[in-house]
Amino acid sequence: MSEYDDLMAFQRDTEALAQVAGRLGWDQETMMPPGAAIQRGEEIGALEGVLHSRRIDPRIGDWLDGIDLATLNNVGRANMRHIKRSYVRNSKVPEDLASEIARVTSVAQGIWARARAGEDFAAFAPTLAQVVSLRQREAQALANGGDMYDALLDDYEPGMTGTRLEAMFAVLRPRLVALRENVLGATRKPPALDRDFAEDAQLAISRDLARAFGYDMARGRIDKAVHPFSSGSGQDVRITTRTSRRNPFDCFYSTIHEVGHAAYEQGIDDAYLLTPLGAGVSMGVHESQSRIYENQLGRGAAFTGYLYDRMIEVFGDIGVPDGEAFYAIANRVQPGHIRTDADEVHYNLHILMRFDLERALISGDLPVADLPDAWNTRFKADFGVAVDKPSNGCLQDVHWAVGLFGYFPTYTLGNVYAGCLYQALRAAVPDLDERLARGDTSAATGWLLDNLQRHGGLYEPRETVARACGFEPTEAPLLDYLDEKFGALYGL
Amino acid sequence: MSEYDDLMAFQRDTEALAQVAGRLGWDQETMMPPGAAIQRGEEIGALEGVLHSRRIDPRIGDWLDGIDLATLNNVGRANMRHIKRSYVRNSKVPEDLASEIARVTSVAQGIWARARAGEDFAAFAPTLAQVVSLRQREAQALANGGDMYDALLDDYEPGMTGTRLEAMFAVLRPRLVALRENVLGATRKPPALDRDFAEDAQLAISRDLARAFGYDMARGRIDKAVHPFSSGSGQDVRITTRTSRRNPFDCFYSTIHEVGHAAYEQGIDDAYLLTPLGAGVSMGVHESQSRIYENQLGRGAAFTGYLYDRMIEVFGDIGVPDGEAFYAIANRVQPGHIRTDADEVHYNLHILMRFDLERALISGDLPVADLPDAWNTRFKADFGVAVDKPSNGCLQDVHWAVGLFGYFPTYTLGNVYAGCLYQALRAAVPDLDERLARGDTSAATGWLLDNLQRHGGLYEPRETVARACGFEPTEAPLLDYLDEKFGALYGL
Repeated sequence: MSEYDDLMAFQRDTEALAQVAGRLGWDQETMMPPGAAIQRGEEIGALEGVLHSRRIDPRIGDWLDGIDLATLNNVGRANMRHIKRSYVRNSKVPEDLASEIARVTSVAQGIWARARAGEDFAAFAPTLAQVVSLRQREAQALANGGDMYDALLDDYEPGMTGTRLEAMFAVLRPRLVALRENVLGATRKPPALDRDFAEDAQLAISRDLARAFGYDMARGRIDKAVHPFSSGSGQDVRITTRTSRRNPFDCFYSTIHEVGHAAYEQGIDDAYLLTPLGAGVSMGVHESQSRIYENQLGRGAAFTGYLYDRMIEVFGDIGVPDGEAFYAIANRVQPGHIRTDADEVHYNLHILMRFDLERALISGDLPVADLPDAWNTRFKADFGVAVDKPSNGCLQDVHWAVGLFGYFPTYTLGNVYAGCLYQALRAAVPDLDERLARGDTSAATGWLLDNLQRHGGLYEPRETVARACGFEPTEAPLLDYLDEKFGALYGL
Repeated sequence: MSEYDDLMAFQRDTEALAQVAGRLGWDQETMMPPGAAIQRGEEIGALEGVLHSRRIDPRIGDWLDGIDLATLNNVGRANMRHIKRSYVRNSKVPEDLASEIARVTSVAQGIWARARAGEDFAAFAPTLAQVVSLRQREAQALANGGDMYDALLDDYEPGMTGTRLEAMFAVLRPRLVALRENVLGATRKPPALDRDFAEDAQLAISRDLARAFGYDMARGRIDKAVHPFSSGSGQDVRITTRTSRRNPFDCFYSTIHEVGHAAYEQGIDDAYLLTPLGAGVSMGVHESQSRIYENQLGRGAAFTGYLYDRMIEVFGDIGVPDGEAFYAIANRVQPGHIRTDADEVHYNLHILMRFDLERALISGDLPVADLPDAWNTRFKADFGVAVDKPSNGCLQDVHWAVGLFGYFPTYTLGNVYAGCLYQALRAAVPDLDERLARGDTSAATGWLLDNLQRHGGLYEPRETVARACGFEPTEAPLLDYLDEKFGALYGL
């Protein structure tokens, strides 16, 4: 065995244990008995402790020093890059800080949930201040005098910086704001669906949709959960969805979104199983897959036409005269407080706001106590609506409670990447709409599989997208797509 | 922190990781996608590797040497006893032998399943020979010149020996054989149920039965699996059951049996959570709980009367005239090849045979190649029926394939213990039958909880039962109970 083989064997067990930890998270949201919370906390703590020790094991440093990169092929060099990044990152953070962050953020989620249920920001503020302070200390340890926000961002989107994101949002903002104003000022006002839809039937359709979008049920499963998510890599990639009697779109598009994430994980080359290349390369690239599945493909006129027919088959009269009206309803633009309910026009404006606020929280420019005012003022300015209660304002998302600073912008980055990929896909598959209108996504998902998903972590995130597109990603394709789609829908 | 506290903190993480490993096993039998088997093997291997390293960590030896037992109370001394037993046991087995056993037995299960399906003992023989040889090597390492079978037995029933089990079976055998002959010679022949029973309704009744026997659903859950089992300790103790349209007793009594195991785990004092005392003390004591729940309580005339009424409520006419006839059907004695289908009269004869054969396999007196002949000859002698195919003979059980030698006799030991506990319980709860006839098991399960279950691993196995009974366990109560019950049922 070479030193590289030894390192990869060690890494393989670490990756396998990380999969186990992920599955504990899945179990907690789907299967765990309600009375098992305390024991589960100890189980997760023990397993995370094992993982942390392995990630900073000094043998990794020795192997990294001892292996000559020139002896490796591009897969080997990519593995080395990932392992080194993780080792350097984890070794920079003092042990007691790492475990304090794990401890506080695990408790913070419950405190946040109770504060949100009680509409009581003050009950959450001391905990949030503690989380911000811990992540600031971590960022300082990671940044070595560099930008603290960039150091945190690197966990979710390696290579990305706050400055580059700022430039991205500067391009997006004016055209998104203009589009929003035009749409809201238009005379066309599509209604919402106005029926009850049996939840079992919604789930049956959503299983068909998952299969239609290429989700491999032999290496996955679908369960219900409060918040939809995708979990796991390789041969065991599970998704969840949810139902709402009045709004079947929630079930259908949550499923398609999570199938986008899951198909990426399932699509990675088998040779990368349980190696650093065997998972999606970044949150932004991950989100590009969930978004293009959900929006550009799933909410397009072609596929919604197919979905309309399926709904009529299952539910009979749904109070919508034809596929065109159904398409308008599925893409209805509505100002609203809640990010996860937002349409394609509003979504990135929600993210923009969170990006600015979280950068200010991490830099210290925005004290936690001032967050509700800052949020509410900004929301009124950007969305023209007052925030009526904390659960519709700065208590709506769990991210900051669990320490996720630098995560939000990857959602918009994913949208930007999805815009680019969709442009390239349309060029590569000229009859895309005819296929989607028959419910056949195979040409689209096959193109994404071949050109992006199968590579896993082989290339850097941006390079992964650029190689698939054949051009450097920019904001223009997303903006053009939104202008065209919603211009046509609203007669602008 | 004292050295004892350090040891217990280390042990706590080990116990938590062992719970995670157990839950992976549960997931594999209930939730895992079929295509995830290879990855799952690596996940379990990695986690077992972590557990093994922790169990032989030299710091444990230092702690054990450094801690003065005189400074500890009885709980502390019991913890030390368990930790020392595990450390000494695991440290005796060379690392490469331990991982070879883990590797071979994990593959052997699949080979056994295919050989059983193909009725092909020869396809399994080389694997079984390998497993026997590995366990012999392990037993030699553990026994230090002592009895090899005793060394293996100690993993499942600490303190028990082959010689004592031989004495137990010598007492059981003549009376069991006589009872069996009398029952089969009797003129009364109760029929079997002869209806189809909707499986959803069976599951609904089995959930009610689980609750009736005190299973805490807030710290557990019930799912379907091919083979019923109970999994986990403390706050997360899950059971499985199965259904058969023609035989609802399979579902009901599998559930009650597993609830006996689960109630034991759930009933252990909360103070022992994630310590060595926080799990059932041995397989024999565990089986005493599942057996007394299933047989003495669940299949008694009082409780079957309640169950008969429930079945009439749910299924209407089931073709059985009254509760007395139903009781006879639920306790129908039938010779048969399969241990897991056996009635109370035949069950221990199945075990007796396996005990003799596995001792001979481990001692080397019985070569693996001769096992089918030895099995078939013995079965004909003990049961008066020829073995028609390997799946009805020595390929029926998975135990030996996965290396479980010394496990079978704990089933009969559990029956003997259950007989003693039932005698003590009847004395302590004079109106037991009136309560059971109303479906109220609380006095019985409460007595078992208070007198046995809550102690977990505090006492040695046999002492645990003796303390609950108030007398030293013997075979007589079980034999008297069986003679009385089946004598009355068959008019002997």
